[in-house]
Amino acid sequence: MISEKLKPLVANNSTVRAMFEEGGKLKEKYGEENVFDFSIGNPNVPAPEEVKQAILDILEEEDSLFVHGYMNNAGYDDVRQTLAEQINKEKGTSYSGKNLIMTVGAGSSLNVALKTVINRGDEVLIFAPYFLEYNWYVDNYDGKVVPVDTKEDFTPDVDDLRKKISDRTKAVIINNPNNPTGVVYDEDVIKSIAEVMYEAQEKTGKEIYIISDEPYRELVYDGAKVPWIPDFYNNTMVGYSYSKTLSLPGERIGYLLIPDEADDAETLIEAATGANRISGCVNAPSLIQRVIKRCADCKADIDFYDRNRKALYNGLRDCGFECTLPKGAFYLWVRSPVEDEREFCKAAKKYNILMVPGRSFMGPGYVRLAYCVSEKTVRDSIDKFRKLAEEYGKQV
Amino acid sequence: MISEKLKPLVANNSTVRAMFEEGGKLKEKYGEENVFDFSIGNPNVPAPEEVKQAILDILEEEDSLFVHGYMNNAGYDDVRQTLAEQINKEKGTSYSGKNLIMTVGAGSSLNVALKTVINRGDEVLIFAPYFLEYNWYVDNYDGKVVPVDTKEDFTPDVDDLRKKISDRTKAVIINNPNNPTGVVYDEDVIKSIAEVMYEAQEKTGKEIYIISDEPYRELVYDGAKVPWIPDFYNNTMVGYSYSKTLSLPGERIGYLLIPDEADDAETLIEAATGANRISGCVNAPSLIQRVIKRCADCKADIDFYDRNRKALYNGLRDCGFECTLPKGAFYLWVRSPVEDEREFCKAAKKYNILMVPGRSFMGPGYVRLAYCVSEKTVRDSIDKFRKLAEEYGKQV
Repeated sequence: MISEKLKPLVANNSTVRAMFEEGGKLKEKYGEENVFDFSIGNPNVPAPEEVKQAILDILEEEDSLFVHGYMNNAGYDDVRQTLAEQINKEKGTSYSGKNLIMTVGAGSSLNVALKTVINRGDEVLIFAPYFLEYNWYVDNYDGKVVPVDTKEDFTPDVDDLRKKISDRTKAVIINNPNNPTGVVYDEDVIKSIAEVMYEAQEKTGKEIYIISDEPYRELVYDGAKVPWIPDFYNNTMVGYSYSKTLSLPGERIGYLLIPDEADDAETLIEAATGANRISGCVNAPSLIQRVIKRCADCKADIDFYDRNRKALYNGLRDCGFECTLPKGAFYLWVRSPVEDEREFCKAAKKYNILMVPGRSFMGPGYVRLAYCVSEKTVRDSIDKFRKLAEEYGKQV
Repeated sequence: MISEKLKPLVANNSTVRAMFEEGGKLKEKYGEENVFDFSIGNPNVPAPEEVKQAILDILEEEDSLFVHGYMNNAGYDDVRQTLAEQINKEKGTSYSGKNLIMTVGAGSSLNVALKTVINRGDEVLIFAPYFLEYNWYVDNYDGKVVPVDTKEDFTPDVDDLRKKISDRTKAVIINNPNNPTGVVYDEDVIKSIAEVMYEAQEKTGKEIYIISDEPYRELVYDGAKVPWIPDFYNNTMVGYSYSKTLSLPGERIGYLLIPDEADDAETLIEAATGANRISGCVNAPSLIQRVIKRCADCKADIDFYDRNRKALYNGLRDCGFECTLPKGAFYLWVRSPVEDEREFCKAAKKYNILMVPGRSFMGPGYVRLAYCVSEKTVRDSIDKFRKLAEEYGKQV
């Protein structure tokens, strides 16, 4: 009855849903404050006050027909121009509005980028562990995901990239800062990826794209810098979302940036604008586009996440767990003390701790904790983690 | 470089864009008030005052984390429940929230429905003339469109449907009220379609779906009634949008309704919810979902469209043009006085009248006029149409 492609999704969905339902039951039974739910990346920081003010001002100052009406499928020209100028200010670039296509969030940016370039059977290389929705996104266009190794510190294994890139490769997805590991790839990493890809482009005589998924770009700690990939590689498309930076995940607002340096950029932009249209989205939601224009220079409350990051990382290390210090995003990647991390997740549930098994990100043997929760949740969880650690004979 | 599937879109896009650019140039040259642009279905009625009030109330009364945050991929439970109850009140049905999936507008509803059931090569039957975006939507899932004839009055030719339905058919798209003809299919028409489809389901032993695209459902005139298709056929999915009713086309908000009567409804709903998620939309925009909840019983300003409808229909008839009296939507379908309606469109441009050639809807020999424009535009256009009619020796 349902399409063949969706059958595994429905089957898989039941597992995920079972997990969520169990979480819901725990909260019902023990009270929300006694459940330590680190499973979802739903920001716990409210949108900045400027967002509310922007909405009020728009309703007061702008014409309702304009605010809620159709515009160019790529988005309002003035919004795109403002965002291009904001990027130019931050990255020292010289984009204009035409380089941006407003999208229904980063998920949609990625889908638009993939639809724009992928033909049936094309390979898309992704450094593992990675956000598993990518598999569905690539499958939407009948592409084939080829996982690429990362090193012990979860930065890309460029030698493995060189091995796997071929004339079947159409794109490489980069997610920096990374979900689920919290790792930030520095300039050297990006340069070495670009080198391999330029070689492959040269050798195959075909465009190979970097599709850069950057919803966490503004969420970095300890002065970490996120390289701007188009500075290093021409055929790059950058997907961005305001979900995390402005705490607007439900609003579905982001953009896809295609630089003039991309081969045949004008056609690429036109095709991507068409892909956005015929995906059924037609255009990104209008009012919230206009809000983003007015909040283009708003910043995330990075201190909040940083406090949670330190508290959780230090707390778990003190319990004896092995963690990767996150340099960006709001995820902590923790080594499971037993080989099958699903057992570890199950054990944690006894203490009302919810975390996601690493195999949900192609990273078995690890678990992911999303620390975009309240500070109290982090604080109160540490005692529970200590008890959990004791079960594994960890030093306490 | 771009995908094979998008190549024809980019090629075709250039033609459409050329048309729009020409329109823009005309407006620049002659002033906006001297150009009669009947080309686009962008409502000229502002959103009802209740929409603005709802936004203000939500910002005042509801928690920002909730209003802009993630929710169930199918949408907020309370929003879906309220809309289900509103439908129940209007249609005498007994849906609950679980039957609705909130979507990024009707375009997205259709894409979600198609992705849910279409396998590569499946046939999708559509009564011509029809909204040509359907071709792209079906192609997104590698389906194949099979146009089905309509009769002289542009109601479905059910005999042709019977001829074309087969074991390759997975869905029939119905668009009622119809874009581009303005025709409304009555209960008898729907019953006869359902009869053919039940026969075909019986014969093939497979589900065949009606995907009903109903963005114009509330826009009907002269007391016309739009039948509620699930009352007549079990395997129906209804796509709806608030674009036209509440003049919110840019906001991208609608739903897909799947009734319990559909075979294996629970799985179908789950698959559609997943399709919505992995399309990259993730969920329908959050704030505007909450607005719709508060405006669930708001009505379109149908009198405005009705005045335009009568003025344009009567005006063109007086000029000697042959038109189909629209019973719904806001389009007038006019027979071209010359065989190639593109010539007619070209001649109209001399009078700064912009209309869309019927072949853009698989309906050559006709043109479409969207009368969701200002009353002044309609009024002032009639003199120009008269001059245009004179060129063709029409009675004036």
